[in-house]
Amino acid sequence: MLAITQGGNRILEREAINIITLTTDFGTADWFVGSMKGVILGINPQATVVDITHEIPGGDIRAAAFALLACYRCFPRDTIHVAVVDPGVGSSRAAIAVRTQNYMFVGPDDGILSLALAQEQVLEIRRLDHSQYFHKPVSHTFHGRDVFAPVAAHLTLGVPLKDFGAELTKYVQVAWPQVSVCDGVVHGEVVYIDHFGNAITNIAPADLTKLTRHAPTVFLRSEEVCPVKNYYQEVASGEAVAAMGSSGFLEIAVNGGHAARALGLRLGEPVEVHGAPGAMKPLKSM
Amino acid sequence: MLAITQGGNRILEREAINIITLTTDFGTADWFVGSMKGVILGINPQATVVDITHEIPGGDIRAAAFALLACYRCFPRDTIHVAVVDPGVGSSRAAIAVRTQNYMFVGPDDGILSLALAQEQVLEIRRLDHSQYFHKPVSHTFHGRDVFAPVAAHLTLGVPLKDFGAELTKYVQVAWPQVSVCDGVVHGEVVYIDHFGNAITNIAPADLTKLTRHAPTVFLRSEEVCPVKNYYQEVASGEAVAAMGSSGFLEIAVNGGHAARALGLRLGEPVEVHGAPGAMKPLKSM
Amino acid sequence: MLAITQGGNRILEREAINIITLTTDFGTADWFVGSMKGVILGINPQATVVDITHEIPGGDIRAAAFALLACYRCFPRDTIHVAVVDPGVGSSRAAIAVRTQNYMFVGPDDGILSLALAQEQVLEIRRLDHSQYFHKPVSHTFHGRDVFAPVAAHLTLGVPLKDFGAELTKYVQVAWPQVSVCDGVVHGEVVYIDHFGNAITNIAPADLTKLTRHAPTVFLRSEEVCPVKNYYQEVASGEAVAAMGSSGFLEIAVNGGHAARALGLRLGEPVEVHGAPGAMKPLKSM
Repeated sequence: MLAITQGGNRILEREAINIITLTTDFGTADWFVGSMKGVILGINPQATVVDITHEIPGGDIRAAAFALLACYRCFPRDTIHVAVVDPGVGSSRAAIAVRTQNYMFVGPDDGILSLALAQEQVLEIRRLDHSQYFHKPVSHTFHGRDVFAPVAAHLTLGVPLKDFGAELTKYVQVAWPQVSVCDGVVHGEVVYIDHFGNAITNIAPADLTKLTRHAPTVFLRSEEVCPVKNYYQEVASGEAVAAMGSSGFLEIAVNGGHAARALGLRLGEPVEVHGAPGAMKPLKSM
Repeated sequence: MLAITQGGNRILEREAINIITLTTDFGTADWFVGSMKGVILGINPQATVVDITHEIPGGDIRAAAFALLACYRCFPRDTIHVAVVDPGVGSSRAAIAVRTQNYMFVGPDDGILSLALAQEQVLEIRRLDHSQYFHKPVSHTFHGRDVFAPVAAHLTLGVPLKDFGAELTKYVQVAWPQVSVCDGVVHGEVVYIDHFGNAITNIAPADLTKLTRHAPTVFLRSEEVCPVKNYYQEVASGEAVAAMGSSGFLEIAVNGGHAARALGLRLGEPVEVHGAPGAMKPLKSM
Repeated sequence: MLAITQGGNRILEREAINIITLTTDFGTADWFVGSMKGVILGINPQATVVDITHEIPGGDIRAAAFALLACYRCFPRDTIHVAVVDPGVGSSRAAIAVRTQNYMFVGPDDGILSLALAQEQVLEIRRLDHSQYFHKPVSHTFHGRDVFAPVAAHLTLGVPLKDFGAELTKYVQVAWPQVSVCDGVVHGEVVYIDHFGNAITNIAPADLTKLTRHAPTVFLRSEEVCPVKNYYQEVASGEAVAAMGSSGFLEIAVNGGHAARALGLRLGEPVEVHGAPGAMKPLKSM
């Protein structure tokens, strides 16, 4: 609780946001995530820690960056998002905390925060230099527990961001494939395959507005595969369909099935959206 | 805290129950469950969200209904149980919230709530019509985040059930195999296989009271397989045994082993309980 | 909140520590862990329950004991650590609760608590005899839900340990391989393989101080495999390295890889640390 007082009288009590989210590749089989939570609760027993996921493929910074992008806005203002996929732990990569207009982000400066940060107005970036906010002894191999978790917990206690270290002017960007539009065809690729086998692309709604024709369809390997619809259920069970998914990107699904397996889709698979069925062929008129 | 006041004086502070449970087939590899929790905490930062499981096999409404049945009563009164296995998301299936004497239940009206509801005194069923309680924009593919999570969170804030939509008089029932008794033999089937490989049947303690003889044994494919005991450990290590499990149903286990693998058991496998060893043969006397 | 009063005046409010950790082999696919949390919250809705892991291999008491050892100290004082790998459930094995100078521990007396307890000053051990603190009806197969969870919850409410049952003077120890030093070579073994494939040994920093020479290297099956370094990244990507890990023990890793697979390591694999490269051969001088 934050007590707001005026002339010695408590005029308002506001719930402080003590929410910390965790996105890592630590898995759930060992004690790693539990250790992070223990460190957080030791600093702020009132913190609410929410797991986004700990099953990011080992070392896959881009997948973590995408998972964070896909969900960080569901959380209330002032939530502190911690993301740790950290193959460079122990090396010279910086650890950072970033304040945006709406949230705080904490993690290694390896690009993991960059897709979310690109959507936000970044107000302040600090390098995590000051070891008084770390869990001791600081290991060489587990900064999730020893650096990022305790810094996030101290942030929930109201420690100002400037106290953690030197100001930086930029952060590392993860490589991210750009969508292009050529001859009325939108060219993107598969960037994430989810638990249901849906293949999520990097194609956003704004990209499809560049199509010059209606009834868009998805082409894979030069073959027309499925229409773009609003609902999975607009196609029959077992049939492929593309729709704007809950992540905010076009995804290729199979109604009631596993699209990645059914269509042989992998990360990086090129995806084209054409403005009408048969659009690969020359058109007489629009 | 709910403050109960009388004549301006606070006479009682009661802990409000802010507990929301989640049972889904969303898996834990992606951000889906985290998104639901973010939406809930954005509406009620004091909510306590408890995962039952997110590893229900994709689309398996009955498995989710059984998991909910097996544990919902462990939670305190007024807990809000949210269950989402929702192959019909985006279609015309209704979304519902149900108040019983002890709990609230929220989910798609596809049968997922029905096994638990059948054990409760149902007091009120409402269709979730009113989008002011939804997370915006409402996607076509993820009502767990956009409909069920925010409705549950609003329920913890005390929004009356009637505000969510039209009253319904019934809910969809999931198909559930009935136990029959014939010639003193109880006929059931395997309805769930758990993490330990125990094969849980639909046979309840009341069913076994219909046996006319003592020392019941389990038959699979017309062969006597194991006795019904109180403890797994009443048989030697590596031997099969049936016992009333913690879910409230008869389960077939192997002491220290994996019964489903050892005995080749699958969902739907017929299970017979006979009143005495050798009961398949004619008996001269009781 | 604990309200500390003096002469009727509240002079201090202290946050009570209501943290309960869970370490089990129950998996997360079923409702077992959810049931435990429901029982806890029914007794103390303010409890904070933290999962260490539920993916301990079925019945592997030593792995659970090691996981608990590796993380229990990350939690604040007065945390209650519940660990349940309980192949003897329903048999005569005792259920215990243990108070140490810093923590409380609750679980079956089968050795699961013993590695952590060996690091602590044990103050009181009680057998869990008194069923008024259990969840009813007490099943024969799920004491995690029916005995250990409710006892932990009652402990957060301040029920004194002596109320739970008879005092014991000792607890069961899990078998744990001892490290030996012979001719300047430290002999240990692999005791745990983590999610990243790192092979954690039973060799602690103190053991390496017994080496009589510098530049220690790890030998497996009489072959020199890798150096002991401070950081994984002190070797090239794809190369093997040993380092003191975050668990407090020497672990064998492959920088950017999966050591257990790359080196064919299993639990129980003998590991030697030699004082210098080539130390197996006779030395002319030190």
